Amino acid sequence: MFKSVTSRAARQFLQPAQTASIGRRYAHAPAVFDWKDPLGASNLYTEEELAIAETAESYCQERMLPRVLEAYRNEEYDKKILEEMGELGLLGATIQGYDCAGVSSVASGLITRAVERVDSGYRSGMSVQSSLAMGGIEEFGTEEQKEKFLPGMARGKILGCFGLTEPNHGSDPGSLESVAKPHPTKEGYYSLSGSKTWITNSPIADVFLVWAKLQETGKIRGFLIERSQCPPGTLETPKLGHKNGLRASITGMIHMDGVPVPKAMMFPDVEGLRGPFSCLNSARYGIAWGTIGALEDCIARARTYALERKQFKGNPIAKYQLVQKKLSDATTDAAYGILAAYQVGRLKDEGKAAPEMISMIKRQNCDRALVNARHLQEIFGGNAVSDEYHIGRHVANLFVTQTYEGQSDIHALILGRAITGIQAFV
Amino acid sequence: MFKSVTSRAARQFLQPAQTASIGRRYAHAPAVFDWKDPLGASNLYTEEELAIAETAESYCQERMLPRVLEAYRNEEYDKKILEEMGELGLLGATIQGYDCAGVSSVASGLITRAVERVDSGYRSGMSVQSSLAMGGIEEFGTEEQKEKFLPGMARGKILGCFGLTEPNHGSDPGSLESVAKPHPTKEGYYSLSGSKTWITNSPIADVFLVWAKLQETGKIRGFLIERSQCPPGTLETPKLGHKNGLRASITGMIHMDGVPVPKAMMFPDVEGLRGPFSCLNSARYGIAWGTIGALEDCIARARTYALERKQFKGNPIAKYQLVQKKLSDATTDAAYGILAAYQVGRLKDEGKAAPEMISMIKRQNCDRALVNARHLQEIFGGNAVSDEYHIGRHVANLFVTQTYEGQSDIHALILGRAITGIQAFV
Amino acid sequence: MFKSVTSRAARQFLQPAQTASIGRRYAHAPAVFDWKDPLGASNLYTEEELAIAETAESYCQERMLPRVLEAYRNEEYDKKILEEMGELGLLGATIQGYDCAGVSSVASGLITRAVERVDSGYRSGMSVQSSLAMGGIEEFGTEEQKEKFLPGMARGKILGCFGLTEPNHGSDPGSLESVAKPHPTKEGYYSLSGSKTWITNSPIADVFLVWAKLQETGKIRGFLIERSQCPPGTLETPKLGHKNGLRASITGMIHMDGVPVPKAMMFPDVEGLRGPFSCLNSARYGIAWGTIGALEDCIARARTYALERKQFKGNPIAKYQLVQKKLSDATTDAAYGILAAYQVGRLKDEGKAAPEMISMIKRQNCDRALVNARHLQEIFGGNAVSDEYHIGRHVANLFVTQTYEGQSDIHALILGRAITGIQAFV
Amino acid sequence: MFKSVTSRAARQFLQPAQTASIGRRYAHAPAVFDWKDPLGASNLYTEEELAIAETAESYCQERMLPRVLEAYRNEEYDKKILEEMGELGLLGATIQGYDCAGVSSVASGLITRAVERVDSGYRSGMSVQSSLAMGGIEEFGTEEQKEKFLPGMARGKILGCFGLTEPNHGSDPGSLESVAKPHPTKEGYYSLSGSKTWITNSPIADVFLVWAKLQETGKIRGFLIERSQCPPGTLETPKLGHKNGLRASITGMIHMDGVPVPKAMMFPDVEGLRGPFSCLNSARYGIAWGTIGALEDCIARARTYALERKQFKGNPIAKYQLVQKKLSDATTDAAYGILAAYQVGRLKDEGKAAPEMISMIKRQNCDRALVNARHLQEIFGGNAVSDEYHIGRHVANLFVTQTYEGQSDIHALILGRAITGIQAFV
Repeated sequence: MFKSVTSRAARQFLQPAQTASIGRRYAHAPAVFDWKDPLGASNLYTEEELAIAETAESYCQERMLPRVLEAYRNEEYDKKILEEMGELGLLGATIQGYDCAGVSSVASGLITRAVERVDSGYRSGMSVQSSLAMGGIEEFGTEEQKEKFLPGMARGKILGCFGLTEPNHGSDPGSLESVAKPHPTKEGYYSLSGSKTWITNSPIADVFLVWAKLQETGKIRGFLIERSQCPPGTLETPKLGHKNGLRASITGMIHMDGVPVPKAMMFPDVEGLRGPFSCLNSARYGIAWGTIGALEDCIARARTYALERKQFKGNPIAKYQLVQKKLSDATTDAAYGILAAYQVGRLKDEGKAAPEMISMIKRQNCDRALVNARHLQEIFGGNAVSDEYHIGRHVANLFVTQTYEGQSDIHALILGRAITGIQAFV
Repeated sequence: MFKSVTSRAARQFLQPAQTASIGRRYAHAPAVFDWKDPLGASNLYTEEELAIAETAESYCQERMLPRVLEAYRNEEYDKKILEEMGELGLLGATIQGYDCAGVSSVASGLITRAVERVDSGYRSGMSVQSSLAMGGIEEFGTEEQKEKFLPGMARGKILGCFGLTEPNHGSDPGSLESVAKPHPTKEGYYSLSGSKTWITNSPIADVFLVWAKLQETGKIRGFLIERSQCPPGTLETPKLGHKNGLRASITGMIHMDGVPVPKAMMFPDVEGLRGPFSCLNSARYGIAWGTIGALEDCIARARTYALERKQFKGNPIAKYQLVQKKLSDATTDAAYGILAAYQVGRLKDEGKAAPEMISMIKRQNCDRALVNARHLQEIFGGNAVSDEYHIGRHVANLFVTQTYEGQSDIHALILGRAITGIQAFV
Repeated sequence: MFKSVTSRAARQFLQPAQTASIGRRYAHAPAVFDWKDPLGASNLYTEEELAIAETAESYCQERMLPRVLEAYRNEEYDKKILEEMGELGLLGATIQGYDCAGVSSVASGLITRAVERVDSGYRSGMSVQSSLAMGGIEEFGTEEQKEKFLPGMARGKILGCFGLTEPNHGSDPGSLESVAKPHPTKEGYYSLSGSKTWITNSPIADVFLVWAKLQETGKIRGFLIERSQCPPGTLETPKLGHKNGLRASITGMIHMDGVPVPKAMMFPDVEGLRGPFSCLNSARYGIAWGTIGALEDCIARARTYALERKQFKGNPIAKYQLVQKKLSDATTDAAYGILAAYQVGRLKDEGKAAPEMISMIKRQNCDRALVNARHLQEIFGGNAVSDEYHIGRHVANLFVTQTYEGQSDIHALILGRAITGIQAFV
Repeated sequence: MFKSVTSRAARQFLQPAQTASIGRRYAHAPAVFDWKDPLGASNLYTEEELAIAETAESYCQERMLPRVLEAYRNEEYDKKILEEMGELGLLGATIQGYDCAGVSSVASGLITRAVERVDSGYRSGMSVQSSLAMGGIEEFGTEEQKEKFLPGMARGKILGCFGLTEPNHGSDPGSLESVAKPHPTKEGYYSLSGSKTWITNSPIADVFLVWAKLQETGKIRGFLIERSQCPPGTLETPKLGHKNGLRASITGMIHMDGVPVPKAMMFPDVEGLRGPFSCLNSARYGIAWGTIGALEDCIARARTYALERKQFKGNPIAKYQLVQKKLSDATTDAAYGILAAYQVGRLKDEGKAAPEMISMIKRQNCDRALVNARHLQEIFGGNAVSDEYHIGRHVANLFVTQTYEGQSDIHALILGRAITGIQAFV
């Protein structure tokens, strides 16, 4: 009735090479566990991906890390960082052409991880430029728009931002109120009005990808606004300060009061939420990698602290079971998170990544990074209160990553809808 | 100072085929999310692995599932199941030769998942036969021992079990008390005495792989005892009943009182805990796959229940946010768990799987399967108390998987030792 | 602007006796921590309450405990238990008159705790008799109904049950389908038809408090059905077996097919869900006490096991941090749970206990008892699988208590409604 | 065999008044649930305690709250706050005499709760003054020491701090290194040297209660150092800035390099850790109340936000189940936490509060306040990142409360030791 596995395997499965390889498996010296790569993910990357990761990692540790403490304390974002990243080809890195690197999604994930290992705010600044702004232009823009903006953005010379969220419309962007109507005086122009909030990079951006409803159709469309072309008083981008986290990134509002936008600066074909959601999808994919980078930094720092800090008869606190459990849990979630992000990255390049997969890894990796970072922070005891241990900054940042680009519960309901076929948002 | 990614990628990374494939990525119809395989793991298996999985899945659903409810209620294990599995080549399936199928570790994981989707007890019975008993003989036995036992065991005609745990030595097997000394009367024989407990399959086993200390050296060695060769009164294997879980597997003790064992039935080379730990490692690898199978069955059953059960104005309870969150969480952990088990499976066949990797996936997959199964059980409300919904059985079983073959906390400390270099067991 | 505390205290607060008492506070020998009563709740009970608790405790440990293992294994409920409880005055104990004890709500809580320390199923059997059946009759019955039933029920000679839940209506009882219409042939009688399920004690009950819609009004009303008065074929109460938990209680259905009920056996005044909800409220109050009793038994058993079980160089496992943390967490939740139940008990007797308070303590105490019992079960390692350690039984039982009489999530939404003023059930 | 409850109750328990009260219980209008006091704790306070709470509450909301945002942003502590508190009699409020209010421990808990409802840092500043410094002097000081310091401290004119923790000795203060030896030149003086860290109020303190080892005996003793009496260069108290939390309190080090301390400024009788632990005990008791105050503020703010914030068809997000569950959980833990703190407060005044009780409530209330505050913070979505919603500040503060005065795990082990009789610190 059932087909025997033995016969099947004998017939089809085992190729000589494979047999040999399996046959050798007990001859090997026992494999060694590496807490920095607990489930051997580095076996999965191509040589090129490993080299790209190393470039990004070196830059981040050597150039970004020394700046982050002061930047975070003072809520100051050094926009030269984007220029430096541009020089290294880290911006819009998956884009083909337009002076972009054209790397795999996994390579881009590894870059993101390296950046967020330093700071989620720095990663946010990069994500906005790469995934939201450049990614949107590349996917939905006209050839003219691409050629105008992408090469400068790839070099970090033109800074972009992405305006979707409004003060009254966060989780439900479909209700956004910004509007584009025919410009009352300028032929061939739309006039855009409305407000956007929590827009990373808005105070320093040169070009704004803004989503607004086209008055004629009531449909959401994407527009590219150049700051330099805006008459005085039509565009304001005040900085939002006093943030609880992501203080090393710069965040602001976008107030538009009759901004004139040439019709050629509207995305030609995409209507409704499909446009912004596609951009967010790419950004969320990056967050899934990045937050694990932040968690890995927490693990490394907590491990070092636990080995150096001695309490009770001179024992390093790494010897205590309650400390080891926190390290074990965190290391496990980091290892699992990387494998999941890797898998979606590969599927993405094969065109097989469903948006819900990205909801899943964005949600889970943010959630687990945050939970474990908080537990690891406990290892530092009273010393955790000092920002010089860096872990408090990661914890504060990771909370924000859990709430932006789809708060964790929203992604739970996106998944729930995909699992059950029933939506439960309202 | 840093090498640009762009130049590197341009030079090395993108092969034409790959470029094309990436270039096509937006042309695809959007990928579809499948709640049964949320992160597309099925893309990773070879065709042969998929075929093997299907064979196992069909057998388990069609032949095992109808038996499990009564078996569990009555604590009755139908040993014909092992024979049926043997006919299909499911036993000792990764072993090369000796009438075994010689499949990949991933294929064997898929078999395990299919079996545990029905019942963790059935999977336990198979694990003992395949990983602990056959695996031990294959890895450490003499050629004579292999030829004597493996073919019959592969067919499920000879049943094996694995005796390591003793009543007073669970998490710390190094302190075991069973002893092998020269037989007082039979030349060329050892005499084995001692007690083993919680031994799956012991009441029905034909051959016993028992670990005992060789009196001469004080070192732990492995011995193969054949029930048919034991003089009356030397070997007793009473069944342990009244279990809280795994009731569809059979568990017992092994009492040895001067069992005569020919010297040729001792494993020749392996000494100390290396032997039993290597066998356990294989079994634990299987548990990492199996428990996700059990969780997947819980998800499927909870989803169906939530879609069919209507409360409050005729809404299916699948519409409620609190229900959807449980489904989303569980589906996520199942998807992550499979990817991790897959990765370790591939590394295993390449000789790159460190034992701590297996501790990690055994622990995490047991823990997450258990936690999520419990949350899913809540969806059934008062009806969960009926065993006909199966989920209560999975929950009870999964708790046992968390405690055996290394309780979760023990694996946390194994990982902690690997991460910190410090052991915290005592 | 603000009144000084010093002057206020000087003027009003400190009475001489109190001052003295506070003044003495440092003179005392340091107070001793008792893990069985960690926050000194026993200071709060009256002497009578303590004496009642002791009576109940002795009976439960000496008479019930020896029966429970076999009862649970075989799903056999010994109905003599209710008679024994009746002899001791434990049934309907808060009722004034009708041969009931008339004790405080706290005393009744302590009885419940003592019973559930042995088994949640035994407590369920008692709750149904006391809170649901007797409580309902006392609160809503006519004087005739009370005199007819309460004295016999108090002695455990007449067994009652409570029929609200129907196969298709659990969390939403307002949609129940059972109906009472004028009896077609018997003057002065209603004819009741419909089905109830998961009814504790139904197979052994003598009197059934059943809620059904009165056809004339469409309103839910309460009816008392005497089994002995039902013509053959009109009332059937099959037992529901094969339960995952609460196996030492007996549960069944109630099938009514034209049961004739005298009009005098309807509750006179109460209409709608107010009636059954008031009964459930009392039962839920008892569950809040009882589940902590079960948890306390788990703590005591886990503590004993941890002190006796030795692993790794002969250390009792109680020495391990991961074990101590489980004990500390559980002990804390037990102590908090008792204080909350106590507080609501006192408020109940003063008429100040809002139903949402009972939702809160029912939910929290069930949830925390369950979570901690599960963690404590881990301490038993592989041995947890044996039912002789009792903890597996508590864990299975406590899961059921979380799902019945309002599943945890339903109570969360009841609380949510009370907190926000908005209902989120649909 | 067992004594019937009925007879006992009939004979002893029910006094007429009580019977009547119970008899009336169903006649009452149904009690109303108040989310701000879910389990009716306000029924437990005396009128005086309620009045004191109201004074404290008014002061805190009207005078402290407007200052906190800027103080936290800039890490600036306004020491006038302690003076204002002193005017209201809030400092050292449980102390009898010495111009202190002499209120009950419950009243003092209510004050603490009111202060921490605004900010944990403000509460820390008060705790140090009241519990650690004044409490220590009152409990262990000579009459001369009390008269010299307490009245001025009660008015907030003399600021105190408490020096126990050292850079290398946090959880294990028994190993502290600060030392007091006979002063080389000043007769009748000790010379104190050593460093203390994370000392709240040290940069602004006038008097320092410092614990150091007396060279002659090797035993820890308490010393009172007056800043004004220290020769230049002997005492330095640099501020520690750049904190992740408690930024509205001021924290510093104490560097002592041969500080001359008159022998009369040593506590006369207390030796070893008993002294500092007793002070810490009082402070920890206050933290148990205070952290619930912070949680209650989070609940109130999250509830308001959820009612005002509308998403998806104009529904307030308070309508969503996932939001309601967070509110329900938090409200429950707050209600339980208050009852536990209240109970220990009453026992404290009766001399029945064991130190482990305080470990229990300190740990649990900090832990639950923190966990729930974090969940409530999620309700604010992306807006949580703005400090103007206050909740991020509470979350950051509450993490610190979990780590100071005994990190949560340390208290778990203190409890574990009390439960099992075995210590697991090393």
